[in-house]
Amino acid sequence: MSTELINRQLRLAARPVGLPKPDDWELTDEPVQQPDEGRFLVRVSHISLDPAMRGWMNDVRSYIPPVRIGDVMRAGAAGRVVASRHADFPVDTYVTGVFGAQEYADSDGAGVRRVDPAVAPLPTHLGTLGMTGMTAYFGLLDIGLPQPGQTVLVSGAAGAVGSVVGQIARIKGCRTVGIAGGPEKCRLLVEEFGYDAAVDYKAEGLVAELRKQTPDGVDVFFDNVGGDILDAALARLTLGARVVVCGAISQYNNTEPVRGPSNYLSLLVNRASMTGMVVFDYAHRYDQATAEMAGWLADGSLRSREDVVEGGIEAFPETLLRLFSGDNIGKLVLKIA
Amino acid sequence: MSTELINRQLRLAARPVGLPKPDDWELTDEPVQQPDEGRFLVRVSHISLDPAMRGWMNDVRSYIPPVRIGDVMRAGAAGRVVASRHADFPVDTYVTGVFGAQEYADSDGAGVRRVDPAVAPLPTHLGTLGMTGMTAYFGLLDIGLPQPGQTVLVSGAAGAVGSVVGQIARIKGCRTVGIAGGPEKCRLLVEEFGYDAAVDYKAEGLVAELRKQTPDGVDVFFDNVGGDILDAALARLTLGARVVVCGAISQYNNTEPVRGPSNYLSLLVNRASMTGMVVFDYAHRYDQATAEMAGWLADGSLRSREDVVEGGIEAFPETLLRLFSGDNIGKLVLKIA
Repeated sequence: MSTELINRQLRLAARPVGLPKPDDWELTDEPVQQPDEGRFLVRVSHISLDPAMRGWMNDVRSYIPPVRIGDVMRAGAAGRVVASRHADFPVDTYVTGVFGAQEYADSDGAGVRRVDPAVAPLPTHLGTLGMTGMTAYFGLLDIGLPQPGQTVLVSGAAGAVGSVVGQIARIKGCRTVGIAGGPEKCRLLVEEFGYDAAVDYKAEGLVAELRKQTPDGVDVFFDNVGGDILDAALARLTLGARVVVCGAISQYNNTEPVRGPSNYLSLLVNRASMTGMVVFDYAHRYDQATAEMAGWLADGSLRSREDVVEGGIEAFPETLLRLFSGDNIGKLVLKIA
Repeated sequence: MSTELINRQLRLAARPVGLPKPDDWELTDEPVQQPDEGRFLVRVSHISLDPAMRGWMNDVRSYIPPVRIGDVMRAGAAGRVVASRHADFPVDTYVTGVFGAQEYADSDGAGVRRVDPAVAPLPTHLGTLGMTGMTAYFGLLDIGLPQPGQTVLVSGAAGAVGSVVGQIARIKGCRTVGIAGGPEKCRLLVEEFGYDAAVDYKAEGLVAELRKQTPDGVDVFFDNVGGDILDAALARLTLGARVVVCGAISQYNNTEPVRGPSNYLSLLVNRASMTGMVVFDYAHRYDQATAEMAGWLADGSLRSREDVVEGGIEAFPETLLRLFSGDNIGKLVLKIA
């Protein structure tokens, strides 16, 4: 391989206020280096776009440090090993990992997974068989603890995580109700993702519609959204219900303080719990969960949907905004090669 | 006993808006009846005053039905059996139960506990050895799950429940930090209730002071208060911390919607949980817990403090307001006989 290769990278130039703007990013080029002993070089082909990225751009204490100004934007990605001095990751191995928003990544293998494109296309390894699917799997099963016959409500239900949560809940014998924005997404919830019912949060009367679609209340609420939707869901909890706090996309671009859930005392009335989850805690169980998910994909009980945008790394900023405009369905991936 | 006896009762006349006003109550008299077969008559001597009462006065779905307009106000109370046709509750038995804000109560024994005035005075049987103590015991131990060496933070720490929570946590080997209003209460937290540190929420700089007093963060937060204090505590959670939602006295007399916790996403960042509790769920374990608490009282490791106000039943409305003005310390009891 030639040392003439150039790595195009997207770096964080400024901390966004509200939605990230073009000025918050900077494109840079640097020569690609050959890997040192014990390391390998990945040609990144697909970049994962996740709501959590917005949080990583803020200078606040969180479950991982913020991306520093001037650093390559943190991102999960998939690609192929193109040069290697690491025995476990020879050339032509397909891998996923936190390679960042760039065309080439140098890695020592930490946190990198080998993936098989024969099992599923690379975008699926970033989505249903990747961090997204792991988030759905462990958040629902380990924190939500759904029992057969119970009602599982999911917000952001047409999104990458939500669409998988609903399907796993259905596989586990639950009644599933999804919340999404607009009639088209709601149709998909039922027809493609197998939800028993869909609630359109953009229509009038969210609270009344939610009551109608959850006549026995909500035993598990898997929340990706926060805000009004979280409040509406809290009002439907059953005794001993579990709320899984996976995200709060409605609040990520706020320029005002996060809106806390006014109805949180429903936790008291119903002896319910609200628990946060971060997928990285379950890394030691990814393989087992991925195998189970791959089985469901293979037998058709689980459908994976990816929204693959083609473009160079320079398309990352505008693609990211699709997460916050409600435009995407399923796992949003930027294909750069 | 004479049928000339008159039972004075305090009834709910109107649903309060904000703090209950004199017009929200009505005093009534009715003749005392002899008990029917299988029932007994209690002369009520002590009435428990609890923040939860404010919630019972609202016409909203909760863990128990609201008190209806015109009904005798629901209240835990203690007294002596003065007439009986019930084998388990002979005359001169001392009892506690939900007898209501009245001088005499007719009962079939459901939910009534026999208590021994030789073990502790009747106000203690309403407080530390009653529902208050049970709330502290089960909320802390079953929901909070404190481990030796962990930091337990308590709001309303000089109140009936909070003062017991801090002491049980100390008995269990935790570092205990209490939040209360004013230097006098904060002094009592340390000197009388054995807290390791006290934080005055009425002083400037709650957030900074809380950070100073919880250098290793907060593993268990037992919340009686809500509002700003809940937000400040959420910002101090450790990984895997537990928040026990016992009450939200700062919000009970709001005429605006309850303020939800802006910092609730700290649950996500810290993989923490926030769980509601209602003491009635633990009724089958009251005897075991009461025995353990009585042992701690007897050996001096637990101090019970009651704030006993003497007056007729007509003093109930103004006594109740002391809970919301921050005037009382320990268990607030109205002695009416």
